[in-house]
Amino acid sequence: MIRPGSTLGILGGGQLGRMIAMAAAQLGLRTHIFAPEENSPAFDVAGEHTIASYEDEAALVHFAKSVDVVTYEFENVPSATADILSAHAPLAPNAQALAVSQDRFLEKSFISGLGIETAPFAPVENEAELAEALAAIGRPSVLKTRRFGYDGKGQIMIRPGDDPAAAFEAIGRSPAILEGFVSFEREVSVVAARAKDGDFAAYDLCENEHRSHILDITRVPADVRPETEEQAVLIAQKIANALDYVGVLAVELFLVRENGQERLVVNEIAPRVHNSGHWTLGGAETSQFEQHVRAVCGWPLGATARLGRVEMRNLIGHDADEWERILAEPGAHLHLYGKAEARSGRKMGHVTRIFAEKP
Amino acid sequence: MIRPGSTLGILGGGQLGRMIAMAAAQLGLRTHIFAPEENSPAFDVAGEHTIASYEDEAALVHFAKSVDVVTYEFENVPSATADILSAHAPLAPNAQALAVSQDRFLEKSFISGLGIETAPFAPVENEAELAEALAAIGRPSVLKTRRFGYDGKGQIMIRPGDDPAAAFEAIGRSPAILEGFVSFEREVSVVAARAKDGDFAAYDLCENEHRSHILDITRVPADVRPETEEQAVLIAQKIANALDYVGVLAVELFLVRENGQERLVVNEIAPRVHNSGHWTLGGAETSQFEQHVRAVCGWPLGATARLGRVEMRNLIGHDADEWERILAEPGAHLHLYGKAEARSGRKMGHVTRIFAEKP
Repeated sequence: MIRPGSTLGILGGGQLGRMIAMAAAQLGLRTHIFAPEENSPAFDVAGEHTIASYEDEAALVHFAKSVDVVTYEFENVPSATADILSAHAPLAPNAQALAVSQDRFLEKSFISGLGIETAPFAPVENEAELAEALAAIGRPSVLKTRRFGYDGKGQIMIRPGDDPAAAFEAIGRSPAILEGFVSFEREVSVVAARAKDGDFAAYDLCENEHRSHILDITRVPADVRPETEEQAVLIAQKIANALDYVGVLAVELFLVRENGQERLVVNEIAPRVHNSGHWTLGGAETSQFEQHVRAVCGWPLGATARLGRVEMRNLIGHDADEWERILAEPGAHLHLYGKAEARSGRKMGHVTRIFAEKP
Repeated sequence: MIRPGSTLGILGGGQLGRMIAMAAAQLGLRTHIFAPEENSPAFDVAGEHTIASYEDEAALVHFAKSVDVVTYEFENVPSATADILSAHAPLAPNAQALAVSQDRFLEKSFISGLGIETAPFAPVENEAELAEALAAIGRPSVLKTRRFGYDGKGQIMIRPGDDPAAAFEAIGRSPAILEGFVSFEREVSVVAARAKDGDFAAYDLCENEHRSHILDITRVPADVRPETEEQAVLIAQKIANALDYVGVLAVELFLVRENGQERLVVNEIAPRVHNSGHWTLGGAETSQFEQHVRAVCGWPLGATARLGRVEMRNLIGHDADEWERILAEPGAHLHLYGKAEARSGRKMGHVTRIFAEKP
């Protein structure tokens, strides 16, 4: 059993790893970060860190042996890495969650296999399959690499008149998936946790606005019907149960409004704490980071109640230069990730504002 | 000017330094802890640490030169140490705050010099002075070492019939102060912050219950009249202004009830974040730790509004063995300090419970 004083190993040294490490410290755990980049933001708040490649078997074994449980902040953990780690320490969430979420085709197949609606999709290995997929799915549709896409990278829209070959070229002729374009009203997400004993707890549904394909603002509660929110949570629970998932996960969904009805279409899942859950840090009884730590340690989940109407805004690139103005704003909670350089598109921090509930 | 990305130096590696370091990290600061003890709890959440004695001049100079501002988690920083540090980096709170608060006689003289009520007191260097002081102040009274007392250590009650010489012996014949015993109804404290520009912000008055001279429970709000609370805050502000104080400070007071009137008597001041302010972590808009970081960096103070009725309970020694039960309790917020050994009397963590305000 994991007890306070044990060591949590975290794969990945970015802001998610950093915030998981701080939550772990609050609960009396030590942390050990494994990341390839020197000066990773998470190193600054961890008792120990290892700088090595995710392919460095000796370093991975040494790391796994030095900790009591391993978790990760990103879904693109190579399966060989996951295998090496789990031979020496419990890995949570499990390797299956990684496998499913790091390949868009597996992911969509898995989700639709559960009877949950996704965009229509088809695998694409070459131009012939792309033509076939386009014929079946129609346009507009979105061609996405099966692996390593995030924040809009590795995807391209194919509209009527566009050249499919050029699109395939644009994504590097990688194994891909063609997805029908979903004409959604808004994007929402469920951030939830599943414990070792199967206990499940979701935060309130939030709605997300993107800017240049990067999350810009999360608002909670989402402006949807209660039965829609209930359905979203059931979808997340179904997915978590099917993966025998342990930890926090996020399910991103499209909200489609047709003939006055609300419909949910799953876009993707993230087997980790999620940017759209940052509002829980200060905005909910238990933050998603603490919740994740509780779950991966086999501890009981915390309360997920919301503390008000919450708005979380990402500070991207030079947005973070506004830190002084934000510090002076009553009720604004500033979180900065300790990144040295405010590169364009780089998540530098976020600010959470909590308002009294609307009557 | 201190900016995110700068380094905050913290003298002392206990739980207070640890929680200051976590608050600093949230605001994008790096931290460097200086402490003599190996395995200090704060090391686990800091980017850098130095293990050296507070008398090690070379180590102190190296430390001060590596940071942008220095603060501390305890008032017994030797004045020579403070002098060395402040020659190489800004020190906040300042050396005067240290000098006044680490000597009970200076402290009481300073406070009563401001026209603020304290217990009657007199300095005691030898038996003759003790006899004189007892004659003037009467019994019961409390003989305390001028320096290095905390959590009831270095003090002894002298009741009618007790042998004064034995009492003086018991505190090691150290330079001392005799204080008249205050027959108080309860102990309250003001935790407040003063910014570089003189801005002042207090948290709501809290009341404190001790067990074996160690803080056991803090409750907020304190059950006192509004005008009493107002007076307590004015006392804290007067003290902070007189010290040109920058940072969070705590003022401990006795509440005396006589003839239906409430009266405040200052017991002591702490030039630092304070155990009776732990409730602000999760219980107030801005925690005392973030507030302290804001102040010592010269940044604007945060909002101090309380988020409900709050109870903070210390986990002393084996109290912390209850961690699993506390984790399972809805609404209980567990904080553990990462200390390996649950020695008796050792502060291992605390738990905060936040309730809806009484109507």
